[in-house]
Amino acid sequence: MRAHLLTIGDELLIGQTTNTNAAWLGEKLSRLGMEVERTVTVGDDPERIREEINRSARRAQLLLLTGGLGPTHDDITREVVAEYFDAPLRTDEEILARIRRYYERRDRQLPSAASKLAQVPDGFATLDNPVGAAVGLWHEATVHDGHRLVGVLPGIPEEMKGIFEAAVMPRLKQRADLRAATHRTLVTSGIGESALQERLGDLSDLLGEKLALAYLPSTNGVRLRLTSSDTDRAAAEKRLDRLEERIRSQVGIHVIGTGKVTLEDVLGDTLREGGFTIASAESATGGLIGHRLTSVTGSSDYYQGSVTAYANAVKQSILGVELGAIAEYGAVSEAVAVQMAEGVRDRLDVDVGVATTGIAGPTGGTPEKPVGTVWLGYADEVRSRAVRQQFVEDRSLNKELFASAALDLVRRELVRRDE
Amino acid sequence: MRAHLLTIGDELLIGQTTNTNAAWLGEKLSRLGMEVERTVTVGDDPERIREEINRSARRAQLLLLTGGLGPTHDDITREVVAEYFDAPLRTDEEILARIRRYYERRDRQLPSAASKLAQVPDGFATLDNPVGAAVGLWHEATVHDGHRLVGVLPGIPEEMKGIFEAAVMPRLKQRADLRAATHRTLVTSGIGESALQERLGDLSDLLGEKLALAYLPSTNGVRLRLTSSDTDRAAAEKRLDRLEERIRSQVGIHVIGTGKVTLEDVLGDTLREGGFTIASAESATGGLIGHRLTSVTGSSDYYQGSVTAYANAVKQSILGVELGAIAEYGAVSEAVAVQMAEGVRDRLDVDVGVATTGIAGPTGGTPEKPVGTVWLGYADEVRSRAVRQQFVEDRSLNKELFASAALDLVRRELVRRDE
Repeated sequence: MRAHLLTIGDELLIGQTTNTNAAWLGEKLSRLGMEVERTVTVGDDPERIREEINRSARRAQLLLLTGGLGPTHDDITREVVAEYFDAPLRTDEEILARIRRYYERRDRQLPSAASKLAQVPDGFATLDNPVGAAVGLWHEATVHDGHRLVGVLPGIPEEMKGIFEAAVMPRLKQRADLRAATHRTLVTSGIGESALQERLGDLSDLLGEKLALAYLPSTNGVRLRLTSSDTDRAAAEKRLDRLEERIRSQVGIHVIGTGKVTLEDVLGDTLREGGFTIASAESATGGLIGHRLTSVTGSSDYYQGSVTAYANAVKQSILGVELGAIAEYGAVSEAVAVQMAEGVRDRLDVDVGVATTGIAGPTGGTPEKPVGTVWLGYADEVRSRAVRQQFVEDRSLNKELFASAALDLVRRELVRRDE
Repeated sequence: MRAHLLTIGDELLIGQTTNTNAAWLGEKLSRLGMEVERTVTVGDDPERIREEINRSARRAQLLLLTGGLGPTHDDITREVVAEYFDAPLRTDEEILARIRRYYERRDRQLPSAASKLAQVPDGFATLDNPVGAAVGLWHEATVHDGHRLVGVLPGIPEEMKGIFEAAVMPRLKQRADLRAATHRTLVTSGIGESALQERLGDLSDLLGEKLALAYLPSTNGVRLRLTSSDTDRAAAEKRLDRLEERIRSQVGIHVIGTGKVTLEDVLGDTLREGGFTIASAESATGGLIGHRLTSVTGSSDYYQGSVTAYANAVKQSILGVELGAIAEYGAVSEAVAVQMAEGVRDRLDVDVGVATTGIAGPTGGTPEKPVGTVWLGYADEVRSRAVRQQFVEDRSLNKELFASAALDLVRRELVRRDE
């Protein structure tokens, strides 16, 4: 099934916003086996939007529009779509009531502009929004003598994703005309793209026309996407099994799971299963470890809290780090990392303490401890240790990489404990 | 001058790569005063590329292509462009010699495929690449009875940017026919899109053909983009001034700055100017307030640290919250929010304490305190207070919204203090 994306918004054209929606949707649709043929961005201009809908409707079996569904005057996608498909807008009373409740729950009056969100082109289905007030729109129509699926989603990424997953995905999965490509994703942690490639070695005996491997690096680790285009489903699965087995035998402990699993999910499961509680003592990561651990639903089962000790005085007063150690070795040191991990373990009365102290940059680097240096501390009831790692020059990347490395250190220590 | 971008590459369509080139070029071209009307992405498919070049050549005075200029078999942009403009490819000996030197300097043999990089369509100028081996291509042609500028750049962002800045920018700046569109962005905080529109009221006496207003919502607040297309630069600035003045008079304290400024930047400046230090006591936000405050370079001037007290025991032991208050009012309550803010202010010895305690979801909601409920606490040396706010149902959105609301509460308290 051929898909076109039409992303709408002046902010995309002038580069105020990077078009992450197109990338996200492109990946989702490809995984479903669709051929994404074309992505177009135009501004909030009815004539341009109409023209691109018309062009795409000539070629694409699925046309997804994003953006311009909000309540304000520059949100015109709803009107243009209604006009193009000759489907007059009507107020959906049920949706209007829901939007009114949405505002009431927030103790706010329904702004007059928001009632626009309840307008639905005649003959369009609505797609529930699990995240916000705007609903998506869905239409199956015959245009230019072909059957077309048309979806209209908000431009705010969280809302677009919520509606796509809850309402568009199930509709697309029903279609029998999806081309089969079988994907599997292995999630790795604690190893970079180049090192991974080197460890995997020559895979040419497995890879080829019917089996491909892609590296998808991010600050949370590298995901490996295995794709088999073998049309025989069982044969495709067998190919994927063989490749997965090889990868697992080569990179062992670095493979933490499959699919959408994250490092914080895996670590959370390990902690819960072991009956362990955890707390973090953070300096360079500024609270990001706690933020990531608590992004998992149910994390209160094991996560007790954290102390971000940016100032040395706080390292001493709340975590009990000796000022002498800071004076002798510096705040970014093995001794301080260990004392922070032990301190938070002791003060918050948990089983495992994890700590970070590093130089995120752009300032604060020295020849011995350049920007990107981090000491990661770990403490449980039997042992404490710290490891030094070196990352990049960018502050925000470093914070993410430091946090990932700290979480991965805990994961590996707990695996080792079990062995 | 009207510009279209054509970004080429399968990796963009399937979402393996986010199209940052389009955003970067869009911003550069807009700043030059060009109207970026349309951005299209197609894969490495000659027929699709040819079709989109033809479409854009009908409307755009400037057409920029990126991607598909490399040495491998799927890099076909050069061939398609040559064919479309009826300009046979010839090997440029000077460029070939340069590419050979480029490889020699790296002690590598010229790969046979790399000689493709020296092929230039007849009549095209070459654009020097300060970063890599591939050169860009430039053409000024009469197509569809209009004069067209056509630039072809590599898809690797560093090379694309290098060539654009060194060779395309100067060529565009020479053109007298750049139409001026002047942008200004106002950043708001603590107010939603609909409420903002309501507060702004009817702006039709100001808005019109030469002046537009767009709302760009995110979890960090709504940005307002003001655009004047008045060709007279001074008149355009005057229009923007009038609109900005009106907006500021209507939404007052919610406008926190202009351009790319963030709430954490503004709050950081306020704290630094006032000589105040700050610490956060976090429950539902899990460390996100600290993470956001420390995303600003130099935040150690005012940010001392934070305590994430997820468990009630930690609220008591580290922050001094009375267990009686938790038993009587619940952990998500005015009393606990105030005690957390006061506790972190006291224990970390700072001027301002800020606290969050809420229900991020998806579990834990009750009829009185549904998912999305948060109490925000504030304490300085003269007063303490807490406010209740209600947000959405999604855990990760709630964490972001709670953190934004907490930072905005501090910002407003500090502004009020000054008044």
